Amino acid sequence: MNFPVVGVVGGGQLARMTHEAGIPLGIQFRLLSDTAQDSAAQVVSQVTVGDYRDLATLRRFAAGCDVVTFDHEHVPTEHLRALQADGVVVRPGPDALVHAQDKAVMRAKLDEIGVPSPRHRIVSDPADVAAFAAEHPSGSGWPVVLKTVRGGYDGKGVWVVHDQQEAEAPFRAGVPVLAEEKVDFVRELAANVVRSPHGQAVAYPVVESIQVDGVCNEVIAPAPGLTDELAGQAQRTALTIAKELQVTGHLAVELFQTTDGRILVNELAMRPHNSGHWTQDGAITSQFANHLRAVLDLPLGDPRPRARWTVMANVLGGDYPDMYQGYLHCMARDPALRIHMYGKDVKPGRKVGHVTTYGDDLDEVRARARHAADYLRGTISE
Amino acid sequence: MNFPVVGVVGGGQLARMTHEAGIPLGIQFRLLSDTAQDSAAQVVSQVTVGDYRDLATLRRFAAGCDVVTFDHEHVPTEHLRALQADGVVVRPGPDALVHAQDKAVMRAKLDEIGVPSPRHRIVSDPADVAAFAAEHPSGSGWPVVLKTVRGGYDGKGVWVVHDQQEAEAPFRAGVPVLAEEKVDFVRELAANVVRSPHGQAVAYPVVESIQVDGVCNEVIAPAPGLTDELAGQAQRTALTIAKELQVTGHLAVELFQTTDGRILVNELAMRPHNSGHWTQDGAITSQFANHLRAVLDLPLGDPRPRARWTVMANVLGGDYPDMYQGYLHCMARDPALRIHMYGKDVKPGRKVGHVTTYGDDLDEVRARARHAADYLRGTISE
Repeated sequence: MNFPVVGVVGGGQLARMTHEAGIPLGIQFRLLSDTAQDSAAQVVSQVTVGDYRDLATLRRFAAGCDVVTFDHEHVPTEHLRALQADGVVVRPGPDALVHAQDKAVMRAKLDEIGVPSPRHRIVSDPADVAAFAAEHPSGSGWPVVLKTVRGGYDGKGVWVVHDQQEAEAPFRAGVPVLAEEKVDFVRELAANVVRSPHGQAVAYPVVESIQVDGVCNEVIAPAPGLTDELAGQAQRTALTIAKELQVTGHLAVELFQTTDGRILVNELAMRPHNSGHWTQDGAITSQFANHLRAVLDLPLGDPRPRARWTVMANVLGGDYPDMYQGYLHCMARDPALRIHMYGKDVKPGRKVGHVTTYGDDLDEVRARARHAADYLRGTISE
Repeated sequence: MNFPVVGVVGGGQLARMTHEAGIPLGIQFRLLSDTAQDSAAQVVSQVTVGDYRDLATLRRFAAGCDVVTFDHEHVPTEHLRALQADGVVVRPGPDALVHAQDKAVMRAKLDEIGVPSPRHRIVSDPADVAAFAAEHPSGSGWPVVLKTVRGGYDGKGVWVVHDQQEAEAPFRAGVPVLAEEKVDFVRELAANVVRSPHGQAVAYPVVESIQVDGVCNEVIAPAPGLTDELAGQAQRTALTIAKELQVTGHLAVELFQTTDGRILVNELAMRPHNSGHWTQDGAITSQFANHLRAVLDLPLGDPRPRARWTVMANVLGGDYPDMYQGYLHCMARDPALRIHMYGKDVKPGRKVGHVTTYGDDLDEVRARARHAADYLRGTISE
């Protein structure tokens, strides 16, 4: 057996689905998980339960792994540098990953390489936020988006403030705060690309990502009505970022399509991403398979779509905990529905799974996905 | 968490791929495996290492499983009856499974329900084989196919004998022997169907199965040039068998297409089957997902193909043990190739994986699959 050992830090659904994609590759998969009950830990054979914030734990886990990669971006940068100094192959490496960990570093780098972002700067207190708002070309930049530079996701660590008084909350934690203009956007897009250490890269079709309360609710692949010019621009932007930041593995670039026809970078993620889940059933090679191929420095798989339209709808925790019961209705109603559940306990608003549908008629494909996601959640009982 | 616990007996590649298909369903998967190194045991979280021939082991394993199903057909029928008597849900049940375990029982049942088989009868010694040959309508029925009624697979337990002297070998083991006419066939086909306890059934497209030395080498879906009439007849035959034998789960019916235009049943398998591996990448719902849905009595998934042609080629063990090295060439040459490796040590002739390809041009699709399988095996180095 000469098949490599891939270590994944973090036991969430991304690791779970990466394992699923790794089974056919015949690789050996090891997981570092917070608990034995985490989403991925339920389905993986070789699980180490431990704290990724502890360097000694990381070192023990990494020993014997041919490559270490991630379910999330929360491993301290200095620990990753220590692992690299030990000789561990870490992909993406800390010099790349820091751009997905620290929004201030990310914004500075995008400015440096000429990738357009929303207007932004680090702010020091509520008065400074007011000054940032006043710097807007129109003279009135309210509301302002404030973000802690580290640790935010799915709307956490993000505030939209309308005046100086509202701007006080983000500073209470005593961590650096980034101010960004609230972009006037038509919709949100995502450009997913995968890059390997030897420099090969592939770009998935640009998708539309529909957010509700800061959480991804639905993804449409490809983004309906997007011009070839903007789609190409979004893909080139993501490929440029992957190259300039020396990303290895999957890179998701969340984008705003502005009312005046520009593409601005919102966030980066260096791992398989919710906006790429559609690829499991809708692309020739899934984001999970390609992430593994990239971190193993194998040739990348074909990223093209298999269907005219693919729609992914997140299943969020709702009012009743028994999602399995809903399978009867959803599977009988739509035999082509693809259900992906994560083995997570249902909590209101928590992402516990997703469904995908595909076909030639976008309205029909969307309606099927929405129905299934809403039925599983309990929003509708038909 | 109300998701059911599925117990699978046997740690081979079928269990491995069933687990892969079960991850998105969110079910809990438990495995009874001969060793901790078996193909499926490498990738499953909850593994019991034990001997499936030991009833006490089976009982301990089955306790806490909502349903027990199988990677193979070797569990003694009486053990399955004992489990059923304990209240364990066993799918397929022993009354169905015995037809895939015992070729004499299978042939008798197919005769009873009017499904055409090759001419056959139990034979007691070499002289009886000669008598069976002489009973052929032409007066000369040599060669004769002899099969041990239990335990054969992939060409094992099968002899093709040309005279009475050659007919001695199969009787040496002292087990019952079934004689069958050597059918004059154009090709081998397989009809895969899935049936649930509530009586729903789905039929996959009929495929052509190309055997080399009694081992499946390649599967083409759908079978090229098969008339709608014969395809329908093959599907109806498989659905009839599934219903009459009360099969729950996946049923593979291996068929001969005879030179005189008939369809005869060769073998039955009541589990996911090599002739259905193409469904992983080529059908809307894979045989593994549908087997799980059936044994859980969930509505079945759409069995229709996603591509005009899908080809599966088995990767057999060859002369060199390092198959991973071949990934570089195969993945770079064909970014749409799907590789499925089983984590098994390479031994000459052993099935260690398979590849699938799909597309609109059958010659091109076949050539891609054959090239990859031969390259991984080491038969060609391009």
